Amino acid sequence: MAAKSKILVIGGTGYIGKFIVKASAETGHPTFVLVRDNTLSHPEKSKLVESFKSFGVTLLYGDLTDHDSLVKAIKQVDVVISALGGQQIDDQVKIIAAIKEAGNIKRFLPSEFGLDVDHHNAVEPVSSFFEKKVKIRRAIEAERIPYTYITSNLFAGHFLPNLLQQNVTTPPRDKVVILGDGNVKGVYVIEEDVATYTIKAVEDPRTLNKTVYVRPPANILTFNELVSLWEYKINSTLDKIYIPDDQLLKSIQESPFPDNFMLALRHSFLVKGDCNYEIDPSFGVEASKLYSEVKYTTVDNYLNAFV
Amino acid sequence: MAAKSKILVIGGTGYIGKFIVKASAETGHPTFVLVRDNTLSHPEKSKLVESFKSFGVTLLYGDLTDHDSLVKAIKQVDVVISALGGQQIDDQVKIIAAIKEAGNIKRFLPSEFGLDVDHHNAVEPVSSFFEKKVKIRRAIEAERIPYTYITSNLFAGHFLPNLLQQNVTTPPRDKVVILGDGNVKGVYVIEEDVATYTIKAVEDPRTLNKTVYVRPPANILTFNELVSLWEYKINSTLDKIYIPDDQLLKSIQESPFPDNFMLALRHSFLVKGDCNYEIDPSFGVEASKLYSEVKYTTVDNYLNAFV
Repeated sequence: MAAKSKILVIGGTGYIGKFIVKASAETGHPTFVLVRDNTLSHPEKSKLVESFKSFGVTLLYGDLTDHDSLVKAIKQVDVVISALGGQQIDDQVKIIAAIKEAGNIKRFLPSEFGLDVDHHNAVEPVSSFFEKKVKIRRAIEAERIPYTYITSNLFAGHFLPNLLQQNVTTPPRDKVVILGDGNVKGVYVIEEDVATYTIKAVEDPRTLNKTVYVRPPANILTFNELVSLWEYKINSTLDKIYIPDDQLLKSIQESPFPDNFMLALRHSFLVKGDCNYEIDPSFGVEASKLYSEVKYTTVDNYLNAFV
Repeated sequence: MAAKSKILVIGGTGYIGKFIVKASAETGHPTFVLVRDNTLSHPEKSKLVESFKSFGVTLLYGDLTDHDSLVKAIKQVDVVISALGGQQIDDQVKIIAAIKEAGNIKRFLPSEFGLDVDHHNAVEPVSSFFEKKVKIRRAIEAERIPYTYITSNLFAGHFLPNLLQQNVTTPPRDKVVILGDGNVKGVYVIEEDVATYTIKAVEDPRTLNKTVYVRPPANILTFNELVSLWEYKINSTLDKIYIPDDQLLKSIQESPFPDNFMLALRHSFLVKGDCNYEIDPSFGVEASKLYSEVKYTTVDNYLNAFV
């Protein structure tokens, strides 16, 4: 059996990065995380980095702005996964340049882990944000770097504990705000499963130069279905407050950044249905079909923890 | 009396841009707004643009990505104010290039309208965002373009109607979440006043190559003072839920973008006190002192509308 690919995660202490690092190490990939000199002085990040060490992860000290450190880190691995945050999308041109110079990378996964930025109906400021991701995709393709784009849809661990309501840490028990008519399908994926599918994809020839859509069938739900599921679990009916499309668009227009961004993102997936683009087999594959052996967490099961 | 400067606003249909356009036109400045061909197809923006026309504003069709259109627009005015949104900070290098080529601009105000990005204690991802604004400042200075930076602190119309609580449209009447100990001074400025001070500053020699801090004395309040003021108005005491600093930092670390951004921004001004940097007269001037004739709206008065 061939040795498992060596994986470098950039942004490994971030929201989704930490799950990817863990999944990579646990499945036996020699796993490397790029950390900055000052990462260990950040209390939360330092705790994470300690846990990484306990999984046998190798820390590589470097910085996006230090080209040589980046090339040196990249030369030690086969696969680069970027999990950089939303403010660092553009900075990935530096990773592309370093991969190009290193010349040894078999697969690059840029920071995606959301909607398919090549097929969406988002309004500003989210559309400008998606454009940044699109530019990175086009730069990767222009440089002929082997890639996989992970369209993992909605982070369940972020959106479900409060049923997309703000400022509540458990799902609502009295009333719920519904954007649009609530009849649009969304796809909720638990973060650990996003990481599992991502690591499965990194050395799979079927995902080479493709977009991997993560759409576990049991987790494709309209917002109304999500609310009904929750009402059933708590054996209670919630008051429903509907915010029509035009009112939502007005709120987006009248809010400053980042609130307008948060609302526009919800508009994209809850009103425009941007999770549910039809997959064209010429560029897309679906993760739960490719890796049917993965026992993903269903939304139904996940919500039980909050009853 | 000299003719008033001609002002071009870029980002004039955005959150703060619309107030600036109105203030500019109302004070007799020949006012121009850069609009894209597709701006009028956006229902909310098209309504705004109609209202601009009723104030006598001239629309100039152009686009940041079309250098010639930008140079042509800039050549018609004396002052350029950028009010571009948070996703377009980097794009201002295109405005700088066009101003440099046009060669006629007497003052450029880049998109700031928040905290002083040269003096802050923000954590990621806000610190990376502030760095983008810093880079634009340094690029303006390197090109020796005459500038004014407007540090207008917190948008009162955004933060006060819900006392910084999420998902409520009126200030809270039962409980309130307080980040940190609530004893840190913040500065809340009503958007119309931000615009008034901005327009006052554009041709003032005292603000040339300076940062204008907008700190109306009556509007410098700790969060606890804000809550007390509100409690007094509604004649009721709220339950107070304190979120300590380390818990807030953990939430920032464990939230995806843009939620981590929103929390980190609150951390910067509610916990770290980033509104309240001491003004060094070598680079900073204070707006309410310079323009003591402006009858700004006080937080106290503003909150009366929500009782």
